Amino acid sequence: MRILGIDPGSRVTGYGVIAARGHEIGFVACGTIRTGEESDFSRRLLTIFEDLCEVISLHQPSVAAVEDMFVDRNPRSALKLGHARGAAVVAALHNKLTVFDYPARKVKQAVAGYGQAEKGQVQHMVRTLLQLDATPSKDAADALAVAICHAHHAAFNRGGGG
Amino acid sequence: MRILGIDPGSRVTGYGVIAARGHEIGFVACGTIRTGEESDFSRRLLTIFEDLCEVISLHQPSVAAVEDMFVDRNPRSALKLGHARGAAVVAALHNKLTVFDYPARKVKQAVAGYGQAEKGQVQHMVRTLLQLDATPSKDAADALAVAICHAHHAAFNRGGGG
Repeated sequence: MRILGIDPGSRVTGYGVIAARGHEIGFVACGTIRTGEESDFSRRLLTIFEDLCEVISLHQPSVAAVEDMFVDRNPRSALKLGHARGAAVVAALHNKLTVFDYPARKVKQAVAGYGQAEKGQVQHMVRTLLQLDATPSKDAADALAVAICHAHHAAFNRGGGG
Repeated sequence: MRILGIDPGSRVTGYGVIAARGHEIGFVACGTIRTGEESDFSRRLLTIFEDLCEVISLHQPSVAAVEDMFVDRNPRSALKLGHARGAAVVAALHNKLTVFDYPARKVKQAVAGYGQAEKGQVQHMVRTLLQLDATPSKDAADALAVAICHAHHAAFNRGGGG
């Protein structure tokens, strides 16, 4: 099973693809979609949608995992983040992927064993768990982390232990 | 020029298509995409995206007009509305439409001559301006209103008067 993890943002969207078989996981790809320099907000959404469609076409994941959105205190920020996440979720569903949501706490718990883990810890653990030669960027690491979180849950739900 | 007006919402999305030539406008189609009964929020976004793709394929508008989102005081509501609007904007852009945003005040001004017009006035004026036999639903009327607003602005910008 290939899992696409997505960390959506209106300026930077991280993505990561992993392969999972039971409790074994392997790295496939990761990267970031940078839209912050595009002044037209609508075009940012199209870039997120189209770039994710390309990633899906290239790496053929069957499911997507997306972090449940942190609800910003600022309604204007929440509105922008909502747009970006909407574009990302539609890209996954439009390409026939099943979409799973995980709260940030569960994602951190899955990769670092601790729901309040710092960004740096998540990056470090993602690198260790996937045996990468380099540390992925924060956005790519967050995307890989939510994919790993889904792999754990899927293995657990199949009775693979946990 | 055919204009698609969209009034996005996470439970009901209104759409309306009009044909415009200078200051003349004519009704083409309108309707609502109802997603409120779908408990899976992600599937609502896919329905908005896919139904709008169908509307575009059927009626072939070249531009889309969307109301600038009212920023809800509640960040959670803003986040949900953002998702729905993101799905709608991506549907338009993905189908090569140019997207224009208009603040609610300008939309009301364009159809009712008054930026603080009530929903009922907007419905009534949309019916009158498009010479409809029946009053469209609130969501469809709002979508037609933003399309009419764009038609006025486009005519004005071409030097057709104002």
